[in-house]
Amino acid sequence: MKRARIAFLGAIHDAMEENGQLKLSDGRFVDQSEVVWLPPVEAGTIFALGLNYADHASEISFQAPEEPLVFLKGPNTLIGHNGQTRRPIGVEIMHYECELAVVIGKKARSVKREDAYEYVAGYTVANDYAIRDYLENYYRPNLVVKNRDTLTPIGPWFVEKEDITDPMNLRLYTYVNGDLKQEGTTKDMVFDIPFLIEYLSSFMTLNENDIILTGTPKGTVNVVEGDEVIVGIEGIGELRNTIVGDTEFSR
Amino acid sequence: MKRARIAFLGAIHDAMEENGQLKLSDGRFVDQSEVVWLPPVEAGTIFALGLNYADHASEISFQAPEEPLVFLKGPNTLIGHNGQTRRPIGVEIMHYECELAVVIGKKARSVKREDAYEYVAGYTVANDYAIRDYLENYYRPNLVVKNRDTLTPIGPWFVEKEDITDPMNLRLYTYVNGDLKQEGTTKDMVFDIPFLIEYLSSFMTLNENDIILTGTPKGTVNVVEGDEVIVGIEGIGELRNTIVGDTEFSR
Repeated sequence: MKRARIAFLGAIHDAMEENGQLKLSDGRFVDQSEVVWLPPVEAGTIFALGLNYADHASEISFQAPEEPLVFLKGPNTLIGHNGQTRRPIGVEIMHYECELAVVIGKKARSVKREDAYEYVAGYTVANDYAIRDYLENYYRPNLVVKNRDTLTPIGPWFVEKEDITDPMNLRLYTYVNGDLKQEGTTKDMVFDIPFLIEYLSSFMTLNENDIILTGTPKGTVNVVEGDEVIVGIEGIGELRNTIVGDTEFSR
Repeated sequence: MKRARIAFLGAIHDAMEENGQLKLSDGRFVDQSEVVWLPPVEAGTIFALGLNYADHASEISFQAPEEPLVFLKGPNTLIGHNGQTRRPIGVEIMHYECELAVVIGKKARSVKREDAYEYVAGYTVANDYAIRDYLENYYRPNLVVKNRDTLTPIGPWFVEKEDITDPMNLRLYTYVNGDLKQEGTTKDMVFDIPFLIEYLSSFMTLNENDIILTGTPKGTVNVVEGDEVIVGIEGIGELRNTIVGDTEFSR
């Protein structure tokens, strides 16, 4: 099942997809033009992977890593489908990054790779934007690269694990203003989902609603104010947002 | 006023200090031996500073940084006063780090340094433990260095801003098994509290209950299973915890 969290007529609702329409948990069908999409999961800790697709690593002139490069993102970075992402004034390069987001379903500690999917609740789509100007370190990017407000659109749908036959064989793609700019497959991840859950849970506890952003394939290009960016993953959804300027940011 | 959050007889209570005693918000005085201390703040985003005291930077053979080295910590790392911190099996060096924790009081965006204290609610004490074996990068430590469960004891007291005349002139100290091992003053911070609030709020929004761990002075030494570690800050409190082994951790 595909589920969403939306704001509609003064309240926040759980919703689902039925025959291509948005249906509230109370049974009403609503027009998408009347709702505001929120992140589909109330996120716990947000983990993000650096350079988890070898082709993207070489694209930005780095070697693929020997162990997962993981950093944390704050909840200030999240926005839902159809939201706006701010491009700071005066920067040269802002990249989208289409990523499969894995949502943890229950407390996970010292999980072995063969059991890893037992701890997955489902999946959604994330766009893990980066302000490349400040990327002086690829292991764990500076907060000014990755932790600004609105840099992580996520959604629109949370898709239950049972609905995805093979999460390690899904097409990812990004359209900018209608043009296909990024294309890849989750098959090309350097560290796959079971490995990431085994790795993280080997030294810390993962909790329900923690989210792992699993990295992006080759094909990141600069986006600017006014651009419409759609990141999509086969079977999971298409997440749209637009880039706006922000004169309030001082850097 | 000094405030705490404690668990007592089946419930979580707000409490305060009165004449050296622990008083619940319903007026009852309770014996400290009957309570479990929780982190005094329900933390939002947790920021931590690397190398924010020049003497500590030189102690571990690094130069003091030219801009703040900030990384995020997950809520899984937090525990309260008198808690236990797990030392992973097989590691060589585990360091305590006595740190002044600044608690944000309201939404902060593009704050100037002269207004910074308006956005501070108060202070507490934190021990930002590090598993040094894995420190291959001092800018933003790997999650295996800093993000394991229980690596961030915090408390016992939240102290309101108004009760601290000058947070940039407080003595910090650490006792291990009763011996003074670390001593410093917040005067020696490389980037002071107003700078940190100006810096972080220049590119992202800080929210109520976000916490900034402001770094540690010189004097970190290895601690092992069975050690009692007390980190203290003048006027704010003394935070005690003990080191336990953990055979469940695989690394």
